Amino acid sequence: MQPYELTIAAASARIRERRLSPVELVDSVLGRIDRVEPHLGAYVAVAAEQARDAAREAEREIARGRYRGPLHGVPVGLKDLIDVAGSPTTASSRVRDGHRAAADSTVAARLRAAGAVLAGKTHTHEFAYGLTTPQTANAWDRERVAGGSSGGSAVAVAAGAATFALGTDTGGSIRVPAALNGVVGLKPTYGLVPRHGVTPLSWSLDHVGPITRTVEDAALVLAALAGHDPRDPASVAAPAVDYRPEREPDLTGVRVGVPVNHYVDHVDPEVAAAVHHAVARLEALGARPVEVEVPLARYLLPTLWGLVAPEASAYHARTLRTAPELYQADVRVLLEAGELIDAGDHLRAQRARTLIRDAWARVLEEVDVIAAPTVPTTAVRAGQETVTWPDGTSEGVADAYVRLCAPANVTGLPALTVPAGQDAAGLPIGLQLLGRPFDERTLLRVGHAYERTQPARALAPVV
Amino acid sequence: MQPYELTIAAASARIRERRLSPVELVDSVLGRIDRVEPHLGAYVAVAAEQARDAAREAEREIARGRYRGPLHGVPVGLKDLIDVAGSPTTASSRVRDGHRAAADSTVAARLRAAGAVLAGKTHTHEFAYGLTTPQTANAWDRERVAGGSSGGSAVAVAAGAATFALGTDTGGSIRVPAALNGVVGLKPTYGLVPRHGVTPLSWSLDHVGPITRTVEDAALVLAALAGHDPRDPASVAAPAVDYRPEREPDLTGVRVGVPVNHYVDHVDPEVAAAVHHAVARLEALGARPVEVEVPLARYLLPTLWGLVAPEASAYHARTLRTAPELYQADVRVLLEAGELIDAGDHLRAQRARTLIRDAWARVLEEVDVIAAPTVPTTAVRAGQETVTWPDGTSEGVADAYVRLCAPANVTGLPALTVPAGQDAAGLPIGLQLLGRPFDERTLLRVGHAYERTQPARALAPVV
Repeated sequence: MQPYELTIAAASARIRERRLSPVELVDSVLGRIDRVEPHLGAYVAVAAEQARDAAREAEREIARGRYRGPLHGVPVGLKDLIDVAGSPTTASSRVRDGHRAAADSTVAARLRAAGAVLAGKTHTHEFAYGLTTPQTANAWDRERVAGGSSGGSAVAVAAGAATFALGTDTGGSIRVPAALNGVVGLKPTYGLVPRHGVTPLSWSLDHVGPITRTVEDAALVLAALAGHDPRDPASVAAPAVDYRPEREPDLTGVRVGVPVNHYVDHVDPEVAAAVHHAVARLEALGARPVEVEVPLARYLLPTLWGLVAPEASAYHARTLRTAPELYQADVRVLLEAGELIDAGDHLRAQRARTLIRDAWARVLEEVDVIAAPTVPTTAVRAGQETVTWPDGTSEGVADAYVRLCAPANVTGLPALTVPAGQDAAGLPIGLQLLGRPFDERTLLRVGHAYERTQPARALAPVV
Repeated sequence: MQPYELTIAAASARIRERRLSPVELVDSVLGRIDRVEPHLGAYVAVAAEQARDAAREAEREIARGRYRGPLHGVPVGLKDLIDVAGSPTTASSRVRDGHRAAADSTVAARLRAAGAVLAGKTHTHEFAYGLTTPQTANAWDRERVAGGSSGGSAVAVAAGAATFALGTDTGGSIRVPAALNGVVGLKPTYGLVPRHGVTPLSWSLDHVGPITRTVEDAALVLAALAGHDPRDPASVAAPAVDYRPEREPDLTGVRVGVPVNHYVDHVDPEVAAAVHHAVARLEALGARPVEVEVPLARYLLPTLWGLVAPEASAYHARTLRTAPELYQADVRVLLEAGELIDAGDHLRAQRARTLIRDAWARVLEEVDVIAAPTVPTTAVRAGQETVTWPDGTSEGVADAYVRLCAPANVTGLPALTVPAGQDAAGLPIGLQLLGRPFDERTLLRVGHAYERTQPARALAPVV
């Protein structure tokens, strides 16, 4: 097994015991990047020299007995909305030509403090406003979309081009590409991970979170990211938690909500079957399935868009005036449309969010987690604009990918996607688990228990 | 001295010692209402029979030794936005013809539990959307405005037609009429007093609070109103506080902020002089004046209106379609204009509010309270539309009355107005004190100490 294939947990065990040097690990990942990047396009920029310097510094620190913990010497890809001091934050957009971040974002600083090594910045759908990330190919099929907007991060992790990565999630942008590339993605509770220094799409719905190969790795990264920072006005002073899941995957007493609506309509039969099997696995581990009804389901998407569109347009208002031609056509039309929304509709979306959040809180008094598909279909072909359902209706690709992820953004609830097998074409399927606010621990515990019932996954082969 | 002239503190001391019966007090106030109402128009409806019944019931309870506290048997006027079970809440509007509240608002229920006796519902500027309350005359000069929107409440208290009253305050609607009628008005910290069952004007800026004849009385009423109610989503679970000010008015160590901007521009010289003298009184009591700069002053009014206008229009959206002719012209034009505001401007107002709130919090690290005029000019003549300043500029009456009150609504900070003498025409002037969030105690302490330096005030004579 090559070092680039290791999970954080496996790599860090070897590094701690000095059976693996951070320099070897980083060299291995950089070598893998060189081989797969021409096929995938996951990175905006690879910081090879700085990464090697940081790896040598980590090696020296560890040799001196200053081991910082499980991220020490481990290479990470950061979605290119996340500021790193002295580097451009391109947002995968020409609008940001010549940009240079003055300081680290909170999450970059926290990863640095934990000893992680920045391998590079990964592609986002331009300014995170889309669900495909067109610059990047799916790790399992180059003809298919990476998913978005954190497509580069998910593809890099799936292909061994980063041991882990960070993404951001406003309407599914961590979970969609993680699911479509067969990796783990966690959108934490709103307010748990500070967003200071991260380019916003919609500040009332944006989240930063990890993309990893295992649930245990997601827990390790979350532990480094979580915690209050007053520079993000939404950041919450939540108590520190040990997120690492237990080794014994006993789920006795855990009530798993199984939705009877919203998550069952217009879902590909192979995806639905995989989620159904996943719930059976959880039941075999002792969990008790409980049917739940998703409240106010038909208001979810209007509420999400009623919040995203004006917030995104407000952030881009000046550039939309001065240099509209620098945006890609799909993003520009969304930003311009957002300027036409009136304050009354925006207020209705804000009020609907409150009602939806309260209604979900009541559902989560009855169950501990909810199990559902992450996306209703696996990765579509690049350029495909709609999905056609068996009943003859069709749906825009972005709407289809957002639909099942939106509830966790509108409510702020934590949501985890875990690989749940493949469809007949060999494309990954994602199981989504949603939980109570700040109860990432239960989410990770259930996800980890499920993951252990699955066969070990190899990296996406690519080359 | 007639019972209707008594403060809550004085009346309740007599009631507790059985030197005054609630029946005598209520009869006296009802008699006063009969005499002054033809001249003032403070009440939408007087509940004489129910009030007499409640007074008899209070008398019986107290005779049996069940004394509930300082509001027991004391008559109150409620601004007619406040639901009382079984009664119409007219909002002083034809839109509400045939209305009947199903249940008590939280504040009505709390006053009832404290033993207060509802004397009637008082006039508001229609739906609280204005600063004059045209149905009601100023208690000191019938040719002048009552101020608004809680005009009926302030005039009733000033004239002896209620021992105390409740008002609501979105941009000054408690403080403006209290100041213009020479009584005390408290806008508590946002979230301290629940608004469940109170017709909103702008839910992110609305507050409910007391209008009384003394600061001590305001403390007594606040104690009955404060406390968490989850049915108001903004309600905060703040710890219970003894608001009643100490008898010894020593202000040694209290830092009083004296603004060098915003509160000094376009303020009538007589008002400015009264506030200047008030600060000198506080200094004589041991307080230390500290000059403070009001941050982001030029954004205050655009921020207030950018929040109020769309929220008000959203609440009235349906009636504006179905029965626009039922609104008064001034309110209808504001509601219709509010529908034209776009989501981007509303978002900018929401973001500006956050910046303003944070900037004020920093100012209030340097001082304990801020002393300023409540309104820049005393009561204008009914029908007067603008105020002309010595520099030749003129300002709309509503803008002038909102201008110095708006900061406490935008920031959510508590603000108290206390009578500070009269101008040459004999019209009352208000001293405004602003404090830290949930620090009503300090505000009331300083207000009470100041009040004791002033000569005893008689009721407005009226007849």
